[in-house]
Amino acid sequence: MNKDNQIEQLIYIFSKIPGLGPRSARRAVLHLLRHKDSLMRQMAISLEATANAIKFCDTCGNMDTSSPCSICIKHDRDKTTICVVESIADLWAIERSNIYSGLYHVLGGTLSAVNGRTADDLNIDSLVRRIKENNISEIILATNATMEGQTTAFYITEILAEFNLNLSRLACGLPIGGELDYLDEGTLSAALSARKAFK
Amino acid sequence: MNKDNQIEQLIYIFSKIPGLGPRSARRAVLHLLRHKDSLMRQMAISLEATANAIKFCDTCGNMDTSSPCSICIKHDRDKTTICVVESIADLWAIERSNIYSGLYHVLGGTLSAVNGRTADDLNIDSLVRRIKENNISEIILATNATMEGQTTAFYITEILAEFNLNLSRLACGLPIGGELDYLDEGTLSAALSARKAFK
Repeated sequence: MNKDNQIEQLIYIFSKIPGLGPRSARRAVLHLLRHKDSLMRQMAISLEATANAIKFCDTCGNMDTSSPCSICIKHDRDKTTICVVESIADLWAIERSNIYSGLYHVLGGTLSAVNGRTADDLNIDSLVRRIKENNISEIILATNATMEGQTTAFYITEILAEFNLNLSRLACGLPIGGELDYLDEGTLSAALSARKAFK
Repeated sequence: MNKDNQIEQLIYIFSKIPGLGPRSARRAVLHLLRHKDSLMRQMAISLEATANAIKFCDTCGNMDTSSPCSICIKHDRDKTTICVVESIADLWAIERSNIYSGLYHVLGGTLSAVNGRTADDLNIDSLVRRIKENNISEIILATNATMEGQTTAFYITEILAEFNLNLSRLACGLPIGGELDYLDEGTLSAALSARKAFK
């Protein structure tokens, strides 16, 4: 198999997708080639169309076909609450749960001494501006339950201390369906210390 | 997130790739959106170009940008040996090992009573024709070491009995780097019964 040829190039491109190594990229491309008209061309068209249509929302940092995004402009969403997330993937995850109806703000990462990310690299200024310019009453800090996520949340609470806001963060504890035996000590100890009385 | 929109459609298309579920398809699409110009458009172009360029080789059943494929027409390959494989993926796997320099023949599957695949569904007639019309001296049956693969190999040896050919199949035994403790009994027993004397 000539390494310079088209198939190898396509496999190389696919292997850059997170979750696909060179081996599974090869399998993926082979599958696509077997379904050339039903899948492969469709994918090419959809990729091109989406790449052309998609933009970042100037307000919250979400990706959508319009800016402001469909969440920011939707009438029935609670415009007084902002849920602060690390990444667009997190925003989508919360949206999928269908339980939150407020607005979002994407930080674009976390503070990280190891990776040299400071507050200037995150969309914190734009968050402060949104709070100043709009009638925001609640901020939910939905950063990840990692050291970096929690540090970032703590940093933001300090910055937002001057505003009159309800600040909250996501609860930590047992995942639904989780079995104690398989959980790490950190989760167990968080679940224990945040235990609730039966009512 | 509107389920009808472009991003969801793209995620749906990606989720059809083997090895990617809905969740990893979402992650893949998000990664592509983040690298719109360096990766996403490239992928669209490469998919379209490859879909247009690729064809099946009339001789061996491989997929390539030409028919006969680059393997069938290459001058320095041994034209007297045919390696019979189940699928194009297997052909590519053997090519990657860089140890075989003969020709191939892709069966397009195995005999399978469960899935109702008979000899008519496999490219056996074309194999017999190649043997008749060309000066073939050796056939390597490189079907998988599964029940169906071995049954298919046995079936083909019976059909090819009338020709004066060297028929062989791949050796079974320990995978290189394999630890006995982690191997199944079938592999161990194959390795034991095919043991070789130290020289």
